[in-house]
Amino acid sequence: MGFDLGTTLQKMNILSDTDNTSVVAITLFVALLCACIVIGHLLEESRWMNESITALIIGVCTGVGILLISGGKSSRLLIFSEDLFFIYLLPPIIFNAGFQVKKKQFFRNFSTIMLFGAIGTLISFVVISFGAIGLLQQMDINLAIGEYLALGAIFAATDSVCTLQVLNQDETPLLYSLVFGEGVVNDATSVVLFNAVQNLDLTHINTTIALELFGNFLYLFITSTILGVVAGLLSAYVIKKLYFGRHSTDREVAIMMLLAYLSYMLSELFNLSAILTVFFCGIVMSHYTWHNVTENSRVTTKHAFATLSFVAEIFIFLYVGMDALDIEKWRVVSSSLKTSISVSGILMGLVLVGRAAFIFPLSFLSNLTKKSPYNKIDFKKQITIWWAGLMRGAVSMALAYKQFTSSGHTNVRENAIMITSTITVVLFSTVVFGLITKPLVRFLLPSSKQLIRMISSEPITPHSITLPLLGGEQEDSLTDLYGQSITHGQTSEASGVGQNIPRPNSLRMLLSSRTVHYYWRKFDNAFMRPVFGGRGFVPFVPGSPTERSVHRFPEELEKLQEH
Amino acid sequence: MGFDLGTTLQKMNILSDTDNTSVVAITLFVALLCACIVIGHLLEESRWMNESITALIIGVCTGVGILLISGGKSSRLLIFSEDLFFIYLLPPIIFNAGFQVKKKQFFRNFSTIMLFGAIGTLISFVVISFGAIGLLQQMDINLAIGEYLALGAIFAATDSVCTLQVLNQDETPLLYSLVFGEGVVNDATSVVLFNAVQNLDLTHINTTIALELFGNFLYLFITSTILGVVAGLLSAYVIKKLYFGRHSTDREVAIMMLLAYLSYMLSELFNLSAILTVFFCGIVMSHYTWHNVTENSRVTTKHAFATLSFVAEIFIFLYVGMDALDIEKWRVVSSSLKTSISVSGILMGLVLVGRAAFIFPLSFLSNLTKKSPYNKIDFKKQITIWWAGLMRGAVSMALAYKQFTSSGHTNVRENAIMITSTITVVLFSTVVFGLITKPLVRFLLPSSKQLIRMISSEPITPHSITLPLLGGEQEDSLTDLYGQSITHGQTSEASGVGQNIPRPNSLRMLLSSRTVHYYWRKFDNAFMRPVFGGRGFVPFVPGSPTERSVHRFPEELEKLQEH
Repeated sequence: MGFDLGTTLQKMNILSDTDNTSVVAITLFVALLCACIVIGHLLEESRWMNESITALIIGVCTGVGILLISGGKSSRLLIFSEDLFFIYLLPPIIFNAGFQVKKKQFFRNFSTIMLFGAIGTLISFVVISFGAIGLLQQMDINLAIGEYLALGAIFAATDSVCTLQVLNQDETPLLYSLVFGEGVVNDATSVVLFNAVQNLDLTHINTTIALELFGNFLYLFITSTILGVVAGLLSAYVIKKLYFGRHSTDREVAIMMLLAYLSYMLSELFNLSAILTVFFCGIVMSHYTWHNVTENSRVTTKHAFATLSFVAEIFIFLYVGMDALDIEKWRVVSSSLKTSISVSGILMGLVLVGRAAFIFPLSFLSNLTKKSPYNKIDFKKQITIWWAGLMRGAVSMALAYKQFTSSGHTNVRENAIMITSTITVVLFSTVVFGLITKPLVRFLLPSSKQLIRMISSEPITPHSITLPLLGGEQEDSLTDLYGQSITHGQTSEASGVGQNIPRPNSLRMLLSSRTVHYYWRKFDNAFMRPVFGGRGFVPFVPGSPTERSVHRFPEELEKLQEH
Repeated sequence: MGFDLGTTLQKMNILSDTDNTSVVAITLFVALLCACIVIGHLLEESRWMNESITALIIGVCTGVGILLISGGKSSRLLIFSEDLFFIYLLPPIIFNAGFQVKKKQFFRNFSTIMLFGAIGTLISFVVISFGAIGLLQQMDINLAIGEYLALGAIFAATDSVCTLQVLNQDETPLLYSLVFGEGVVNDATSVVLFNAVQNLDLTHINTTIALELFGNFLYLFITSTILGVVAGLLSAYVIKKLYFGRHSTDREVAIMMLLAYLSYMLSELFNLSAILTVFFCGIVMSHYTWHNVTENSRVTTKHAFATLSFVAEIFIFLYVGMDALDIEKWRVVSSSLKTSISVSGILMGLVLVGRAAFIFPLSFLSNLTKKSPYNKIDFKKQITIWWAGLMRGAVSMALAYKQFTSSGHTNVRENAIMITSTITVVLFSTVVFGLITKPLVRFLLPSSKQLIRMISSEPITPHSITLPLLGGEQEDSLTDLYGQSITHGQTSEASGVGQNIPRPNSLRMLLSSRTVHYYWRKFDNAFMRPVFGGRGFVPFVPGSPTERSVHRFPEELEKLQEH
């Protein structure tokens, strides 16, 4: 690694002016990605570090190295591109999150997630915007009112990519589903707010505008979700009907990947919330499509999507780290370094306050609706949720670039200050908050660790420990289910049919969330699964050894290849 | 699909001037890729069609559609970019080819492959270059001498991507390894010729220049191969030493993918033959690295690499098809349409003659060195090899663009004629030759079909039917071996150890190619495998159920997830 990197850097110095630049940049990035993976692996046992911080630090170090080698000129190859981020890096991450999310956990907390994601983000937006107007205007920074509001919209959104890095779905499933779910839902809120800031006159807020905003949010949320669900169902239907597995498992994987990406891009095209779309597409694909494909495709999709997401995450942090050192914007700011630091501090404080302003009241509200004490979010959990969602990462940075740079340059003083402050906030929050979150979770929620020892799939809520007795609980997490069908093959498929049939259970009826789930299950079994496939509803598993042998000779060949 | 496409096209018309263009282009491409996969699947049973022709035709139709919608203005989003092709689309295809190639078949024919790839391409180059000088100069086309030679270099190279589409490794392994191997090796030849055309005075060829060319070729071939081998061994060593599988199979897949790509980019950076590098990297990875990873990673890498390659292939043909309709270059040519057609015809004829000029003599030479009649390339096979390598595809097109367009535009008449002629040759050869190859192979080599019925892994050479008796033959094809270790898990790994030890066999000693293979096997077992892993030399398979249970609790959790 060291060797590759060294020679690449040498070459870069020589070639940076030729059209080889893109080759050099890609080579450097790929070499750094390899280094991040290896170092991240070596630091795996560490209590504090995580992959994102490693990548960020390596990125910053490389940035320093490039600065030194290029003699302070800073190379163009490191300019942050929102397109690269939103079009190529974000989709695999969010899709994979939807694909691997524990669905039951997610939908059980759906009302709380919506509360945090929609109302919470709005509260945070208001606090940050008006805080910024109040505090920054005193510091000789003249932004338009719309820019202050944009600042609010940028910093109100939790970075779902950071959350994924810090929280572990298996260790803290409730926290994960709440904070990550909020991150997904508030993307829709952010889009609405961004549009509102640009199109509506927000200086005179009245009931009509509030209703309009609410209507916009509902419209966006629903259309984005439907688009994702339709794409997911389409993939399930196509794969079930056309039976790709007959001669090619690669086609199945390709069509899943492409349809998911298509849903993201269509959503982007129609100015919907692409994150929401691809997230729900992932959920639907894991519920239906994944069960319609061959066993090899199942293993492949599970790991290939996770790998793509993993690489994209590291790439983002590396990229943010390297871009942070772009000398041009710091030069503009250098004359007013003190202001820039103060602005960063103020923004950081506003983020802290803005998040606190909705987590605690809304958790209280959410607790009111829950009867069982096990379902309630206690104070320790509230603090963890507040803290774990504080990080601001690449999403904030991309939005800041979108707002404050018109042509990729940052010559206006105010804009340069805003960009550098955003970078400071991103670096600080990712590194410092990121480092502290892991130990904090262990300190505040020690129970999770004990529960993990019991190898419960839902270790935090004691509620869930009693529930497996009700049966059918193991259907919850896709992850449990993956391995099952891989190891047992046909057998587990068959036994899955039995599990799908809801067992009459008076205790389940009593819980209202259970009832919704019950009717959904009924509808799913009666209509959705026969049409779109899914566990236990695919006539036979193509590619399974028992099924294959009855086919004629091209399949024989394929069998030879695969077994 | 139809719906998505329709709305996208509509949108495009409206949005084509905004910065949404890239989003529109990507959405359109992804939708078309999905359509290609579905249609390709439906046409699978067809005797004539293959995926590349489907994609090409869909691409051309879409191009026509865009032309009609945009009112003949032709949209910029379809301009062919060599960077996109060489940096993103080609690496996964060639890497996957190396990863899945039947190694023993490939190395058994290595001398013939080198003969075809190096000497053959040179002969073809000379024939096409001088033919073009002789014929085109009579047609009022004034190109510099260097441009004629470049034309020779462009059209001398077989398109390995096209070959992959038309020939099937399992049906016709000898043909596949010869024609595809030639395609890989002649990339090095092409690079040498291209550099020679630009740097050397080729009008006065003497022994010194010939030796220099030969030296260049050797240097390039050896350094490129070494770079690929080193990258492959590095991945094997890192994964074996650091034992990624302990907590993450995704890291293994990521590091394999990234190191392979890194080798390609480094090779590109140092102006080596990147295709050769990544091909050998794939071979080494399938021989060592692939055996060091967890079972899930094996399934994932096999199918994920194949999927990426599959999507990239379709993308290329779609892209070529859509680009063919770019109105700008046709407008320049339209005044001299007759000339353009004649030039295309002449080039096509020269390609046919140039290929015939080396296949038949070199096959004769190759046959002289082989004692066993089974190893010889008979006349029918020679014709098939000649025909199957006639296609010129995206590689030729990318090289033509590199040579004949300086700024992406084609205003000079000669350049425009050359580009449009290249497109015509590419479309014609891919569609017509592609359509005919499948039936031709079945007509000329009917034996292959019968042998497939016997489910032999090497159906054409009767030689190989007797060989399995020698034992150890099943180690040949990676594909056979995949399923084995997947279905039998630990068991087949254990039995694999036994197979690795070369059995003393007097018959094997008698065959000289066997002897080389024997010493290689000895060296491999004594030195390479203990260091770099490989089948039977990994202490235990991480991720296998028997191994996992002795670990402590984080692995327990992962086990839960994966099983």
